[in-house]
Amino acid sequence: MKKLLYGVAYYDEYMPYERLDEDIRMMKEAGINVVRIAESTWSTHEPQNGVFDFSSVDKVLDAMHKAGIHVIVGTPTYAIPTWMVKEHPDVLAVTPRGPGKYGARQIMDITNPAYLFYSERIIRKLIGRVSGHPAVIGYQTDNETKHYDTAGPNVQLQFVKYMRDTYETLERINELFGLDYWSNRINSWEDFPSMVGTINGSLGAEFAKFQRKLVTDFLAWQVSIVNEYKQPGQFVTQNFDFEWRGYSYGVQPSVDHFAASEPFDIAGVDIYHPSQDDLTGIEISFGGDMTRSLKGSNYLVLETQAQAFPNWTPYPGQLRQQAFSHLASGANMVAYWHWHSIHNSAETYWKGLLSHDFLPNPVYNEAKTIGADFERLSAQLVNLRKHNQVAVMVSNEALTAMEWFKLPDGKTYNDVVRSLYDELYKLNIECDFIQPSSKKLKDYKLIIVPALYAVADEHLERLNEFVQGGGHVVYSFKSGFANEQIKVRTTQQPGGINEACGISYSMFVSPNKVRLKGCLIEPGEVSSEVGTWMELITPATADVLAYYDHAEWGNYAAITKNRFGQGTATYIGCMPDAAIVSRVLKNTVQEAGLWGSNQELAFPIIVKSGTNADGKQIRYYFNYSGEAATFVYPHAVGRELLAGRSIGIGEQLELAPWGVLIISE
Amino acid sequence: MKKLLYGVAYYDEYMPYERLDEDIRMMKEAGINVVRIAESTWSTHEPQNGVFDFSSVDKVLDAMHKAGIHVIVGTPTYAIPTWMVKEHPDVLAVTPRGPGKYGARQIMDITNPAYLFYSERIIRKLIGRVSGHPAVIGYQTDNETKHYDTAGPNVQLQFVKYMRDTYETLERINELFGLDYWSNRINSWEDFPSMVGTINGSLGAEFAKFQRKLVTDFLAWQVSIVNEYKQPGQFVTQNFDFEWRGYSYGVQPSVDHFAASEPFDIAGVDIYHPSQDDLTGIEISFGGDMTRSLKGSNYLVLETQAQAFPNWTPYPGQLRQQAFSHLASGANMVAYWHWHSIHNSAETYWKGLLSHDFLPNPVYNEAKTIGADFERLSAQLVNLRKHNQVAVMVSNEALTAMEWFKLPDGKTYNDVVRSLYDELYKLNIECDFIQPSSKKLKDYKLIIVPALYAVADEHLERLNEFVQGGGHVVYSFKSGFANEQIKVRTTQQPGGINEACGISYSMFVSPNKVRLKGCLIEPGEVSSEVGTWMELITPATADVLAYYDHAEWGNYAAITKNRFGQGTATYIGCMPDAAIVSRVLKNTVQEAGLWGSNQELAFPIIVKSGTNADGKQIRYYFNYSGEAATFVYPHAVGRELLAGRSIGIGEQLELAPWGVLIISE
Amino acid sequence: MKKLLYGVAYYDEYMPYERLDEDIRMMKEAGINVVRIAESTWSTHEPQNGVFDFSSVDKVLDAMHKAGIHVIVGTPTYAIPTWMVKEHPDVLAVTPRGPGKYGARQIMDITNPAYLFYSERIIRKLIGRVSGHPAVIGYQTDNETKHYDTAGPNVQLQFVKYMRDTYETLERINELFGLDYWSNRINSWEDFPSMVGTINGSLGAEFAKFQRKLVTDFLAWQVSIVNEYKQPGQFVTQNFDFEWRGYSYGVQPSVDHFAASEPFDIAGVDIYHPSQDDLTGIEISFGGDMTRSLKGSNYLVLETQAQAFPNWTPYPGQLRQQAFSHLASGANMVAYWHWHSIHNSAETYWKGLLSHDFLPNPVYNEAKTIGADFERLSAQLVNLRKHNQVAVMVSNEALTAMEWFKLPDGKTYNDVVRSLYDELYKLNIECDFIQPSSKKLKDYKLIIVPALYAVADEHLERLNEFVQGGGHVVYSFKSGFANEQIKVRTTQQPGGINEACGISYSMFVSPNKVRLKGCLIEPGEVSSEVGTWMELITPATADVLAYYDHAEWGNYAAITKNRFGQGTATYIGCMPDAAIVSRVLKNTVQEAGLWGSNQELAFPIIVKSGTNADGKQIRYYFNYSGEAATFVYPHAVGRELLAGRSIGIGEQLELAPWGVLIISE
Repeated sequence: MKKLLYGVAYYDEYMPYERLDEDIRMMKEAGINVVRIAESTWSTHEPQNGVFDFSSVDKVLDAMHKAGIHVIVGTPTYAIPTWMVKEHPDVLAVTPRGPGKYGARQIMDITNPAYLFYSERIIRKLIGRVSGHPAVIGYQTDNETKHYDTAGPNVQLQFVKYMRDTYETLERINELFGLDYWSNRINSWEDFPSMVGTINGSLGAEFAKFQRKLVTDFLAWQVSIVNEYKQPGQFVTQNFDFEWRGYSYGVQPSVDHFAASEPFDIAGVDIYHPSQDDLTGIEISFGGDMTRSLKGSNYLVLETQAQAFPNWTPYPGQLRQQAFSHLASGANMVAYWHWHSIHNSAETYWKGLLSHDFLPNPVYNEAKTIGADFERLSAQLVNLRKHNQVAVMVSNEALTAMEWFKLPDGKTYNDVVRSLYDELYKLNIECDFIQPSSKKLKDYKLIIVPALYAVADEHLERLNEFVQGGGHVVYSFKSGFANEQIKVRTTQQPGGINEACGISYSMFVSPNKVRLKGCLIEPGEVSSEVGTWMELITPATADVLAYYDHAEWGNYAAITKNRFGQGTATYIGCMPDAAIVSRVLKNTVQEAGLWGSNQELAFPIIVKSGTNADGKQIRYYFNYSGEAATFVYPHAVGRELLAGRSIGIGEQLELAPWGVLIISE
Repeated sequence: MKKLLYGVAYYDEYMPYERLDEDIRMMKEAGINVVRIAESTWSTHEPQNGVFDFSSVDKVLDAMHKAGIHVIVGTPTYAIPTWMVKEHPDVLAVTPRGPGKYGARQIMDITNPAYLFYSERIIRKLIGRVSGHPAVIGYQTDNETKHYDTAGPNVQLQFVKYMRDTYETLERINELFGLDYWSNRINSWEDFPSMVGTINGSLGAEFAKFQRKLVTDFLAWQVSIVNEYKQPGQFVTQNFDFEWRGYSYGVQPSVDHFAASEPFDIAGVDIYHPSQDDLTGIEISFGGDMTRSLKGSNYLVLETQAQAFPNWTPYPGQLRQQAFSHLASGANMVAYWHWHSIHNSAETYWKGLLSHDFLPNPVYNEAKTIGADFERLSAQLVNLRKHNQVAVMVSNEALTAMEWFKLPDGKTYNDVVRSLYDELYKLNIECDFIQPSSKKLKDYKLIIVPALYAVADEHLERLNEFVQGGGHVVYSFKSGFANEQIKVRTTQQPGGINEACGISYSMFVSPNKVRLKGCLIEPGEVSSEVGTWMELITPATADVLAYYDHAEWGNYAAITKNRFGQGTATYIGCMPDAAIVSRVLKNTVQEAGLWGSNQELAFPIIVKSGTNADGKQIRYYFNYSGEAATFVYPHAVGRELLAGRSIGIGEQLELAPWGVLIISE
Repeated sequence: MKKLLYGVAYYDEYMPYERLDEDIRMMKEAGINVVRIAESTWSTHEPQNGVFDFSSVDKVLDAMHKAGIHVIVGTPTYAIPTWMVKEHPDVLAVTPRGPGKYGARQIMDITNPAYLFYSERIIRKLIGRVSGHPAVIGYQTDNETKHYDTAGPNVQLQFVKYMRDTYETLERINELFGLDYWSNRINSWEDFPSMVGTINGSLGAEFAKFQRKLVTDFLAWQVSIVNEYKQPGQFVTQNFDFEWRGYSYGVQPSVDHFAASEPFDIAGVDIYHPSQDDLTGIEISFGGDMTRSLKGSNYLVLETQAQAFPNWTPYPGQLRQQAFSHLASGANMVAYWHWHSIHNSAETYWKGLLSHDFLPNPVYNEAKTIGADFERLSAQLVNLRKHNQVAVMVSNEALTAMEWFKLPDGKTYNDVVRSLYDELYKLNIECDFIQPSSKKLKDYKLIIVPALYAVADEHLERLNEFVQGGGHVVYSFKSGFANEQIKVRTTQQPGGINEACGISYSMFVSPNKVRLKGCLIEPGEVSSEVGTWMELITPATADVLAYYDHAEWGNYAAITKNRFGQGTATYIGCMPDAAIVSRVLKNTVQEAGLWGSNQELAFPIIVKSGTNADGKQIRYYFNYSGEAATFVYPHAVGRELLAGRSIGIGEQLELAPWGVLIISE
C-alpha cells in the first residue's frame, strides 16, 4: 500500500434522490480517498435472470475516478435477488431450524450449484467489466461470509463423504467419536444420521469444522475467479468479522480466519465496538491484532462505525481517536459503514457518516480533520510494522468444543480469551495471534494459551518443546483437556501438558464463595471471588502462586508456575478477576524479560508502536477516558506528528480527554 | 339509547346443570337488564355441517324476555367448530409460525372462502331467527376480531394485487420502499416474495396495514349481512379491544379502530384493567375516550371484569367505582364478562360475577347496589355528552413502524402514548382521540402528538396550519421522522414540523445517566434520569424549556417551545419522567387557556364531566385510593345524586376510599 | 434381598481402551458387589437389523462372575440404533414440537409396532442369552421410561378409542369436559381433533393421563417378556425417576409410579440431588419414601451421583453420608452412575466414581470405606422395615391439572408438595406416600394432602371418613377444587371437604404484601409475607389458626382447624413460609399423638429409623452441615455400629461435619 486509505461504503443504489456529485464534493472535503461499492446490490445489477444493468457501477466509477477517489468493488453474492429464490427455492440454506425464508441477506446454501452458477456469472460480468477501470484498486469477495448453518441433505451427504475421506472406516469413527454412547454407533455408511439431531459433541464439532471448511472453499473459489480479471496493482480482500455480541467481541466461530485468508492478497475486516463512556479501544486492538496476524502484514478496516447506533454516536474526539487506533494496530485503511444513513428497510438506525438529512453534522466535521491528518501524515504512518514477542494462541476447535461442553455459568471460550487479552492490552503489551498448528512458536518469548480445550497431541508437544527451549507459556484452565475429536484425554490432566506445568488434577468444581490465597495475594488482601470454574490442582514440581481460600478445597492449588527446561509454564486453574489475571501476566512478562517503559503506563493510557517505512519508531499514545491525563515521555527525542512539535526525553506530556499523540522517534 | 344498560355475558351452553330460572332471578336481584349471548358457541348451534340447533338461544331469549331483560346476540364466528376444521383444514390461518392447529378460538384465516361461506350461513340462520324476537335489542358481529397474523399464500396473493392497485408499478414500489437495500428489489410481479421473511420494515409495515384492512373488510361484510335482518330500534356493534399487556393497555396494533367502526351503529369495547392497589381508572378512561371518539358518541362496555383474576378481585367499593367510571367517560352500558365462572377448559380463573358455586358473594352483592343505582339514576346519567378541547393523535401506522424500528430499551409506541395520556388523566384534562387524517383539528385547542413516527406530509401540514391558526401542539420525540412508507425524511428533523417547532436535530443517542436542566427544572432540583431516547436538538426560533444535563451533550436542547403563527408547538425530544411530562403539559394547557378548577384537583381525585339529555352538567368525582380524601366543591350549587343531597358552593366534600360522588349542577 | 448391594453402572462398550480386569480390581478394592450393564447399548449389540453381537455382555458377565460381582442386565430399548431410524423413520415420536430427529435417547414412539417388534426381539435375544448366567441377579427393563410426548396421528387414534371405551358417548364427553366452551364441542367421532392444539385443560389432562397409561402398558409388556426368562432368585426392576429440576425434585409428571411399578418384583429408582453446601438429604429421603411406598418394601437405588457435575462433587464425608442416607430410607442397594467418566459425546461432565484418568481419586477413596462398611454391617442394615404413621397423599392428576391451571407466580404442584414434605423431614417425621385411590388410609394417623386439585368424589369421601373415624388430615389450598375431569365443583369450596374442614370460600386472590395474624403467630411477631395464592376463607365450625393481616382481606381466615367426628381437618388456605408450615405440622402431629423424642431434634440433625431382620431398632443420625453437632441420645442402650462402641441412655453424642452414626438398640 502506498498511502493511507480513508473510506466509506457507498451505495448510489440506495439513494432517495440523485446525490452523486454532492456526495463526492462532501467526500473530498472530508479527505475520503476510497469508496467500497456493489457488495450487496445483486438485484440492481441483475434485475432478471441473465439481464444485467451495471449503470450505477459505471456511473460511480467514472465520477469517483474524476474526483481522484479510489474504488473497491465487491462481488454482490451475499444477498440474493428475489427472482433467484422464486426460480430455485433450494438456493436457500436448510438449517437446523428448517427451510429458509427469503428476505434477509446471508440465507443461502453456499454449496448449492444453482447459487454457485449464478454467482460465478455475476462475478465474471461485474469484475470483467470493471477490472480495467482506472478507479478500481481492488476487490472484495462476498461479505462477512459464513456457512449460515447450512445443513440440508446435500450438505449432510458431503459431510459423510468428508468423514470417509478423513477417517476411512466407520470402526475408526465409532471409536474416535465415542459413538457407542447412547446407542449412536454407525455400523453402515447408509445409516449415517443427519447431524441436525446429534447429541454427540465430538461429531457435532467435526460437522462445525466441516462447515467452516465450506466457507474456506467458497472464498477460495471466488478469489480464483476474481484473480482471472485482476490487473497488476489491484488486490483481492475479504471483509472478515468477529463473534458478534452486539459488537465485535472475539474469535469468529463460523470461519477459520487463518485458513480462509490464505488466498487473499490482503486481509480485511470489520470492527465495531462500544463507544461513548464504554470506549476502551480493546476491540480495535483485538480485531487489528487478529487481522494483522492472518497474513503477518498490514490490513484494511473495511467497515467501522461512524455514528452507528444511538449508544455508539461518538463523543467529540472519539472518532479521531478510533481512526488513529486502527492505524496504531497496523491498519492501512479506515473506512466507515457507511457514507449516508439508510432511509428504508432494516438498518435505518445504523447511521453512517451523514445523517438522513445529508447535511454536515458534528461527526462528519470531525471526519474532515481525520481525512486531512491522514493525507498529511500518510507517508509516516502507512505500513507500520510490528515485531511482537508475545502471542495469544486461539483455536476454532477449542471454541466449538466449549460450545458443546459449556461452562456452568454460561461463559464461553471467547470470554476466556478476552479475560486474558484484555489484561495484556491494559498492560500495553502488544501481541500477535497464532493457531495451535503454528510452526513459528520460536518467534515469540511468551505465548498465552486460553482454554485450549480440544487440541491434537502434536500441538501440545510443540508447546512443551517451546517451554523446554526457554519459552514462557501461560495456560488457562481446561487447556489440553480433550484431543482434536474432543475425546477427553485418559492421561493425567491437564492433558499433554501436565509434566510441563508440573501439576495434575482429577476433579473440578463450580466455585461458590471461593477466594484465593497465597503468594500472589498481598498480606491482608481479600481477593475477589473466583468465577466460572475451578480445577482442584495438586502440584508436582510447580510452585503455587495461589491456593483456593475455602474450607473444603483449601489444600488445592489454583494458579501455579513451573520451570520446565529453560522456560516456564504458568497454569491458571480457575477464572480469577481481572486484577489477579493482570498480576499473573505481569509476573510472566517480567520472567520473559519483556517488562519495559510502556508497561509503566497502563489503561486508560494506551501505547502502540511499530516501525514505519523509513525505519523510524512510531509511537501512538491514547487516552481512553473523558479526563485529561499526563505521562512522562520515556523514549528518545522525537516529534509529535499531529501538532508537529518536538518532544524531549523525560518531558511531561498531556493527553486530552479521548486524545491521541503520535511521536516519531 | 334510552336508558343505562347493566349487563353480563351469559352462556347457557356452558352451564354444568340447568340454571336459567335461578340465574335470571339472581340477575333481576342485581339489576341486570341486558345479557349478551351466542358469540362463541357455534359448535352448539351447528353441531354438524348444515345441521342447526338454536334451542339454547330460543330458550334464553324467551326466558329473558319474560323477565324483562334485553338480549344482544353475537354472531358466533370467532370460534370455529371441530367439523369445519376436519372437513376444511385450510380454514386455519397460515401464519409466520406455520400452519395452524385446532383448539383455540381466533385461529382462522378470515379471508378463507370456506370459512366465509359457513360464517354467512350461520349468521343468516341465527340472526334471521332471532331478529324478530322482542328480547333482542342489538347484535354484536364476531368478537375481538383481528387478522390472527394470517399470511398464507392466498393472503400473500391478495397483498401483491393490493400493492399493484395501490402503487401501480414495481419501479415505484422499489423506490418508495427502498427495495434496493440488501438486494431485495422486485423486478417482476412474479418474483414478489412472501412477506413472512421480509426484513424490509417499509414493506412489512405495509403488509400489517393490509392485514388491518382485512379486519375492516371482514367486519363490514358481517355488518352488511346482519343489517339485512336488523329491525328498527336494534343496533349492530362490535367488541373492540386494546393492546393487551395482561390488561387493556393502548392502541390496538392489529385493527384500525376508526376505519373498522365505520359501519357499526354504535361502538363497543372491552376494557380490563389492574385492580386492588393498582386500580387507577386510567385504562377505563383511556378505553372510554378512544371508543367514544370512534363515532363521536356514547358507547357500550360489552365486557369488563367482575372478579376475574386472583390479582383483580376488587376490594370492597371498587366494583362500584369502576361502573361509574365507565359512565363518566360516556359509556351507556357496563357489562361483565361474565355471569358465572367457567368450570372447565381454559378460562376457569377468569371469574365472573358469580363464583363456581353460583352463590351470592361479596362482589355480586356490590353489583346489586350498582344495578339499583343505575336504574334509579338512568335518566340523569345516560347519554352523557362531552365537548373536549384537547385531543390525542394516535396512529396505527406509527405504532407498526416503531415495532419494526424499535426503541433501544424495549419501550414501544404505546408506552409513549401512555406516558402522555396518563399525565393528562392525572391533571383531570379530558380528551378525545383523533387520527392523523382527521380533518377536524380545529375542534380542539390543544393536540397531543405522541411519537408520530410514520406519517404523510399532508397530515403534518394540517398540524402546522393548526398551530399557525392559533392551535397548540405537543409533539414527542420521533414525530415526523418518516413518511407513510416509513422512508425516513431527507429534510431536517423533526421532519415536516421542524419549522413549526423552531428546531432541528441530526443526531440522537441512548441516554446514559443524563438528567435535565433549564427553566423547566426548579433551581436546586435534580431531575430524574432521562430514559429510552434523546434527540440532540438545536433550537432555531424555539425557546428551550430544558437542556440535557451531561458532560458531552449539555449544549443540546431536550424540550422546546416555539411560537409559530398564532399558536405554539412544544417538542419533547426525550422520554422524561412523569413529573416533567406533567409540567410540560401544564405549561401548554395554561398557554391554551384550558387550566380550570378541575386542574386544581389531581389524581387520586379524578373529575369527569359532561352534559346530560336535560342539558345539565354532570360531574363525577372519584377517589382512586384506599384513603379517604376531601376537596372543596368549586362549581355552582348542585345535587349529589347517589346520596340525593344538595351541595353548596365551596362546600368541603369527602370521598370515601375508592369512593364516588356524582353532582348534577 | 440377602445383603446390601453396592454398585455402579458399567459400560465396557464406552471404554477408550481395554480396562475390564483393572476396573474389576479397583471395584473389588472399593467393595463394589454389583454392576448394572447393557441398558443403553443397543447399537453395539445389534449393529445391523437382525445381526447380533453380545460379546461385550458375555465378556463382562464372565469376568464379573469370576470376581464375585453380581450383574443386573438392562434391556437396551431406551436408545435406538441408527439403522432402525433409517429403515423406519416413523419409530421417532411425533410430538407437539413436530416430527422427531435422531440423536438423543428417549425419542421413540413407545407404541410404534416396528419399535415394539425390534424391542421384543433384542429383549428375547439378550435376556434369553444371559438368564442362565450365574452372575445375573436381576433385570432392569428399559430406563427412566416415559412417553416422550408422543402425540402423532396413531397415538391420537388410540386416544379417541380410549375415550370411547372410557366414556361411551360424545354427549357425555362434551358435558364432562365442558367442550361447549369456545365452540370445542365434538358432535361426531370423526371430528375428534388432535390433542396437540387443545386449549381445554380437562381434555388435555385426560390425554396426559392416557400418555401415562402408555408407559404403564409398555413397561408391563417388557416385564411379561423378561419374566419368560427370569430364573428363580432373579428379579425384574425398573429405574424410575422424578420431576427433574436439574436434580430429582418431586412427583414424576409423565409416569404413574404406583401403577407402573405393579408388575415389577422390586422398585428401583435414580436419585440425584444438590450437594456441597446445598446437601440436605431431602431428595434422598423424598425419593426413598416414594420408592419404598410403591411396593411397600425395600428398594434399589440404581443410580445416584458419585462426582457428577462440578457443583455436585462431594465434600469429604458427603459420599458416605449420602450412601447411609439411602439405607436409612430403606434402600437395599446404592449404585453410582457410573463407574468411569465418559470421554466423548454428551455426558462428559456427569462424572462417575473415577475421573477420565481412571486413577484413584478422593471420591473413589471415600467409596472404599463405604464398601467396607456395607459389607461389614450388611446383615444388620439390610431389609430395614418402616412402620410410619404419617402419609403424604400425592396425585399425578392434581399435578397435571395444575400444569393446565397454573398458579399465578409460577409455583407448581410439586412446589406445594415439597413445601409440606420438607418441613416434615426437618421435623424428623418419617412418612409414606399414598395415592388418593388408596384403601389403606386407616394405616395412618395423619395424612398430609398437598393441593389435591383434581380428585374424584369417592376419594374425598374416604378422607372424610378417615377424619370422622379419628384420623387427622392437613389439606393445603386448592384441595378438592375440581373433580377428576378437572371440572370445578359447583358446591361450596373447598369442594367435597368443606364440611369436614368446617369452612367455605368463594373468592381467592393473589397475595400482595399480606402477612398472617392470629393465634399461630406469636404476640409481637411479624410473619413473613404469604406467597403464591390465598383463599378468602369463612369459618363455619372451624377454629381459625391464622387470619390474613391486610387492610381489605383481614376478616378472612387463612389457616383453620376443625374437629370432625373423632378427628381433625386442618386447612392451609395460602402458601405461608416454611416456619409457619412447620408450626401447623407440629400442631397437628401433636394432636395426632405422634410427637416424640426424634422431634426434639431437628434439621440439620436428621434421624431415620426402622427395624432390621433381627427385629432390632436401627437408628441413623445424620448431621447435614459442615459444622460438628451434638445431641443427647434419648433411647435405650445401644451400639453404634460404625465405630462399634456402646451408647448409654442420655449420653451426649457428637456428629462430625457431614457425619453419620448408626445405633442399634
